[in-house]
Amino acid sequence: MVRHMPNQQKHLDRVFRALVDPTRRAVLSRLTAGPVAVSELARAFDMALPSFAQHLDVLEQCGLVRSRKAGRVRTYRLMPHPLRPAKRWMAQ
Amino acid sequence: MVRHMPNQQKHLDRVFRALVDPTRRAVLSRLTAGPVAVSELARAFDMALPSFAQHLDVLEQCGLVRSRKAGRVRTYRLMPHPLRPAKRWMAQ
Repeated sequence: MVRHMPNQQKHLDRVFRALVDPTRRAVLSRLTAGPVAVSELARAFDMALPSFAQHLDVLEQCGLVRSRKAGRVRTYRLMPHPLRPAKRWMAQ
Repeated sequence: MVRHMPNQQKHLDRVFRALVDPTRRAVLSRLTAGPVAVSELARAFDMALPSFAQHLDVLEQCGLVRSRKAGRVRTYRLMPHPLRPAKRWMAQ
């Protein structure tokens, strides 16, 4: 019987699900160069803002990005740590 | 404007979607050791055979496994090639 480690598996489920969408992958790629204000980030994508915001929420919920508000500007930064188990899985 | 290369992006969509499911990941892990007959493969998973067969179909449709029938025995083997663009993407 194949035994799963439930938490580790759930983490991989969420990370791979986040990576299924090309917009979310493009956001992560964009953030590899450093933190970006949400308005600037959104300008790079030809998409209604509510849809774009949903993608950012998915990424933030699984810990791949973190946002911070300073005054009226919300900035997103990449959090690469949650990708590590997925990279390890791919490398096996 | 972020430009996608549509075919490359669609390939990544399909591979990451295949990897979202823990059963499919476990099948791929099992096949890293070499080809396995479907009956032996199914025994390792506590799952109704039709559901298990659907997972195998998803993996075969995106090229991550290939099956071959010899007499009454269908055998699955891992095809690692489609994982490469996903690994490259993760490594960026």
